Amino acid sequence: MSVNVLVHGAGTIGKRVAWAVAQQEDMQLYGLANRSLNAHIRGMCGLYGPLAGTTLYCSTADTLTEMQTAAGDTFSVGGTLEDALASGEIDVVVDATPAGIEQQYMSLYKKYGVKSIFQGGADASVAPVSFNANVNYEQAVNAEAARVVSCNTTSLARTTNALYNIGIEKMFVTLVRRTVDPADASKGPVDAMVPVTDIPSHHGPDVQAVMPDVDITTLATKVPATRNHSHYVVAELTQEVTAEDVLDAFKEANRVTVLYAAQGFDSTAAVAEYFRDIQRPSGDMYEAVVWGDAIEVKDGTAFWIHAVHSEAIVVPENVDAIRAVTGTEKKAASVQKTNASLGVL
Amino acid sequence: MSVNVLVHGAGTIGKRVAWAVAQQEDMQLYGLANRSLNAHIRGMCGLYGPLAGTTLYCSTADTLTEMQTAAGDTFSVGGTLEDALASGEIDVVVDATPAGIEQQYMSLYKKYGVKSIFQGGADASVAPVSFNANVNYEQAVNAEAARVVSCNTTSLARTTNALYNIGIEKMFVTLVRRTVDPADASKGPVDAMVPVTDIPSHHGPDVQAVMPDVDITTLATKVPATRNHSHYVVAELTQEVTAEDVLDAFKEANRVTVLYAAQGFDSTAAVAEYFRDIQRPSGDMYEAVVWGDAIEVKDGTAFWIHAVHSEAIVVPENVDAIRAVTGTEKKAASVQKTNASLGVL
Amino acid sequence: MSVNVLVHGAGTIGKRVAWAVAQQEDMQLYGLANRSLNAHIRGMCGLYGPLAGTTLYCSTADTLTEMQTAAGDTFSVGGTLEDALASGEIDVVVDATPAGIEQQYMSLYKKYGVKSIFQGGADASVAPVSFNANVNYEQAVNAEAARVVSCNTTSLARTTNALYNIGIEKMFVTLVRRTVDPADASKGPVDAMVPVTDIPSHHGPDVQAVMPDVDITTLATKVPATRNHSHYVVAELTQEVTAEDVLDAFKEANRVTVLYAAQGFDSTAAVAEYFRDIQRPSGDMYEAVVWGDAIEVKDGTAFWIHAVHSEAIVVPENVDAIRAVTGTEKKAASVQKTNASLGVL
Amino acid sequence: MSVNVLVHGAGTIGKRVAWAVAQQEDMQLYGLANRSLNAHIRGMCGLYGPLAGTTLYCSTADTLTEMQTAAGDTFSVGGTLEDALASGEIDVVVDATPAGIEQQYMSLYKKYGVKSIFQGGADASVAPVSFNANVNYEQAVNAEAARVVSCNTTSLARTTNALYNIGIEKMFVTLVRRTVDPADASKGPVDAMVPVTDIPSHHGPDVQAVMPDVDITTLATKVPATRNHSHYVVAELTQEVTAEDVLDAFKEANRVTVLYAAQGFDSTAAVAEYFRDIQRPSGDMYEAVVWGDAIEVKDGTAFWIHAVHSEAIVVPENVDAIRAVTGTEKKAASVQKTNASLGVL
Repeated sequence: MSVNVLVHGAGTIGKRVAWAVAQQEDMQLYGLANRSLNAHIRGMCGLYGPLAGTTLYCSTADTLTEMQTAAGDTFSVGGTLEDALASGEIDVVVDATPAGIEQQYMSLYKKYGVKSIFQGGADASVAPVSFNANVNYEQAVNAEAARVVSCNTTSLARTTNALYNIGIEKMFVTLVRRTVDPADASKGPVDAMVPVTDIPSHHGPDVQAVMPDVDITTLATKVPATRNHSHYVVAELTQEVTAEDVLDAFKEANRVTVLYAAQGFDSTAAVAEYFRDIQRPSGDMYEAVVWGDAIEVKDGTAFWIHAVHSEAIVVPENVDAIRAVTGTEKKAASVQKTNASLGVL
Repeated sequence: MSVNVLVHGAGTIGKRVAWAVAQQEDMQLYGLANRSLNAHIRGMCGLYGPLAGTTLYCSTADTLTEMQTAAGDTFSVGGTLEDALASGEIDVVVDATPAGIEQQYMSLYKKYGVKSIFQGGADASVAPVSFNANVNYEQAVNAEAARVVSCNTTSLARTTNALYNIGIEKMFVTLVRRTVDPADASKGPVDAMVPVTDIPSHHGPDVQAVMPDVDITTLATKVPATRNHSHYVVAELTQEVTAEDVLDAFKEANRVTVLYAAQGFDSTAAVAEYFRDIQRPSGDMYEAVVWGDAIEVKDGTAFWIHAVHSEAIVVPENVDAIRAVTGTEKKAASVQKTNASLGVL
Repeated sequence: MSVNVLVHGAGTIGKRVAWAVAQQEDMQLYGLANRSLNAHIRGMCGLYGPLAGTTLYCSTADTLTEMQTAAGDTFSVGGTLEDALASGEIDVVVDATPAGIEQQYMSLYKKYGVKSIFQGGADASVAPVSFNANVNYEQAVNAEAARVVSCNTTSLARTTNALYNIGIEKMFVTLVRRTVDPADASKGPVDAMVPVTDIPSHHGPDVQAVMPDVDITTLATKVPATRNHSHYVVAELTQEVTAEDVLDAFKEANRVTVLYAAQGFDSTAAVAEYFRDIQRPSGDMYEAVVWGDAIEVKDGTAFWIHAVHSEAIVVPENVDAIRAVTGTEKKAASVQKTNASLGVL
Repeated sequence: MSVNVLVHGAGTIGKRVAWAVAQQEDMQLYGLANRSLNAHIRGMCGLYGPLAGTTLYCSTADTLTEMQTAAGDTFSVGGTLEDALASGEIDVVVDATPAGIEQQYMSLYKKYGVKSIFQGGADASVAPVSFNANVNYEQAVNAEAARVVSCNTTSLARTTNALYNIGIEKMFVTLVRRTVDPADASKGPVDAMVPVTDIPSHHGPDVQAVMPDVDITTLATKVPATRNHSHYVVAELTQEVTAEDVLDAFKEANRVTVLYAAQGFDSTAAVAEYFRDIQRPSGDMYEAVVWGDAIEVKDGTAFWIHAVHSEAIVVPENVDAIRAVTGTEKKAASVQKTNASLGVL
């Protein structure tokens, strides 16, 4: 069975999920819906794009004519989002629209009986399950909807879950956040740090949305960088282990990769360059990247630092979430298919 | 006949040229030489890299052991650069070593009768011809060596050459330069502009190295950005034309592409994103990108703005220069092969 | 006679003008009006601020209570802006409110017969004269209102006017703009350049608002820096002069200063540091700073580069404009008083 | 008694300490020594500078002539550093030369029996005591030399010491470091984070150099900003207290100030702007600035975030250290004099 997927929202995440869906043998990209024919669509679905020929849908009727005019002969517009949903041919919508408007669309998806996947910017209440493939795939099986947690939360869920057998009593994490994605030339800061002065930042509770038993407190700040978040983790353990044990746990974990500053990967820039050099599309890092040199254990407390690609880390999670909510695969098989199709290390 | 190419210097340019050579049906990548097994090599030639299996050579004997140790089982080291040259199997070396050390290697290449291609950072005296495929391919045919001019000069040569039939009497260009490549986390400035206070900056004379008749004066500044230079061009014309004529000239020119701010490509970030979206390896822009909206003609003077990808714009020029110095193809055929293999728009 | 001045708008410019007014022996700062009690006011008018004790007024009645609550015992709130205007005690309002809302306040100032000074972000039509002290002080004498042109325009008016005797036939200027003021942590770009793709940028016509006879075309771009604009100027001259002549003209010009890269002032950062080191309040640069090393004349064309402090360069112009519209001083005397009180070099 | 002070090293710290010394009634600035007549000296000691007239000394004989030539009529050069030391008139040298060369000068100071103050970049072994005025002033009284700990360590020593009565069992701190000072246009990163992959970073042990009993582990990263470090602190307490108790402790602490994001001080940029607005010379922040909104206590663990001005926070500490090593004042009197003269909040 091939699952028909509509991606709604052609931004940083949406365009990547659309492409990833198109790489799956058991899925079909039905179309890409958005409010307007933006620059992302011009790149991805244009003449030279990897999704050339994809049918576009307009999120709302009032901008459809404008989209059709912009489309000219280069792009194919199939109607409105509701037209697409009403076709009865779509199994799942992946909603990657801006945070805050998901509730209104949720009703629309429900109206047409289409399952939906939301992103971590959406409030947890939008879906019965907040999802991470490593942690709770099974909870989302056959669910009406799932919410893939954010990039920061995904990386924390993966690394924390990797240490499940070692056992974490309490965690403190400082998140140093890239402030905008590389394509955004409007937002700052340019020469400042913007700390979250409400402690804990929302990331800790969001980790608990997928891992309720983890005792985690997060602090966060934005800094003038575009490419990767980095996390500084303090984890008080429940048993005595060595740094080597922690390293081994990360090496065995799914979608966690280890790079070494000593080998030249000594900044988020160098880490990002590695993924450009291996020619991942857009330089995407699907993996949480832990610096191997920075893993330390002292007096029962583990420390590590990892980098998180805000644009891409949730992409494989969305693909798995599609299989989960449609009940088309069990966890192991889905993860294997997703990883193989995307070249996850 | 297949040309055997050794690339010397595994940095931003060298690693790209190595990959581009490997894409040519009429060339073979003999190996990649460098002083050390750096992070670029780990990415490109490692297990997951597009050049996995490439034989490495060490620039100098004194670091060979160190390179062999670093290589372990993952990389294959074939000996020193001189060993490679002495094999008699190499037709051309592309030298992409840091500026300032090319003269010493030049002697080595000559000693073994191997032709060589240098980069624009090298002094013009290093080779009998400063090269741009559009402008003076023929001058480099069968030459002992050629110097591919720098990224900034390449873009100015292409756009200026595009207006050859229209005729430029005098040009003034302000170059706003990205200060470092994206992988470099050491150099700044962070929050400053660093103007070149010697007028003209070296770029104008460098354009004249390939186009001696062009009357051009350049001013330049570095700014805190990593991805693209942008050039602000004033060209006093020798005949009356319209902005449409200038636009047409750019559209017809080889390796010049037009994007529009009005379509969302309104910053160097958005332009760079386009090339990520069409999934160019590393997001590379081989083309000079002119903003179509910014082409203006007023009182006999043309104005335009173009973006220049410092990492990649010279890559196709290097490939053409290899064919030129080896005399294996005429200009039109070489440009066609290079463009097709790299997907130049 | 002492002129009573109300400053309306407590942002980057307004707070500086308020302080500068307070330094004038022939002026009194009546108060500072704003929509809210923002961080600028907390700094400038708080316990430790140089304007402690200044009476605040609320721009609009609907936020007055909120301002009074925020004021507590630390700040004194005198009522609304209209209350202040209705007192009959104010001679001039300096309006430094955000661009786009000046027209609505203009009516209010007129209603109470109070003269007004607007800033360059406002449309030129807001006042009968666009003002630069060096160029056209006399035109603003006794005018009902004047508009002090923007930071970029002010620097171009000063430097261009300095070459009036030499004679400029035609000018081309590329403006590399700091994107936000240092206190702004919200706007970008972070790693991009944002060119103005409409040529000419609005700066050229704005220079012509004060100097109608100048033939100037401007190109512009925003870059990720906060502290200074820099301008790259090409001026085709009407007579043969040397670079020394141009340098002399700048040295003699009012509010133009020359610094040398060769002495270590080789970036906008180093220039800004000079003004911190001489302990200008906030590091303010009231002067256009020309790089002495970058002045060049070639084939009848002059080239130079200057730095412009967006926060401060218009401050002395506002002070002079107050004297002009109130007719309290002639040009030379006003400029002398302003410069002496602010320590202009 | 007036203490005669020579400052050696005219960089970010040295020039500030020189100025601060000149503000003390019980001290005299004997002179300023440096290897060259750099831009800092041109600003501070030039015609318009606050230290105009200061005698300069050349660190080494071999650059003396060069310095004299550069000095011209504007600056007064008194000879070499050794000439100054040999005069017998200097009581204390504050050494603010670049890290790594202090040992060689240490011998010179000793040779002439001059006491010395070093900076935190120097190895702790350079002086018998690592100094922070709040924590261990008494240990430095009449010492031959003292080392004022670095900006980051100073802020941690002050805030940690503030909670001495509350009691801290264990601390984990993530330091997000501005990468260069604002005047530096050479170093980066531009768009990257550079984590310290050796855990702990050197800051924790450096805190222990002044507070041996504190159990602290630090993680650190550099980010593309120039104006303030920010620290994210987790402190497990030895007794139950409230956030209000912690806030009170900070309010009572010397050289610790509280600002609120809710009042607009919601970024390091806004905090820096406050100190520009109150017209501190160069916008200097002598205080560690704690965000009042970010103080939290949960399950016996306190959290807070503070900002650290790398250029200025150690300035008052240097002034106190001078009084300590010369035995001219007891702690309370020295701190009071320093704070009053510099306007510490």
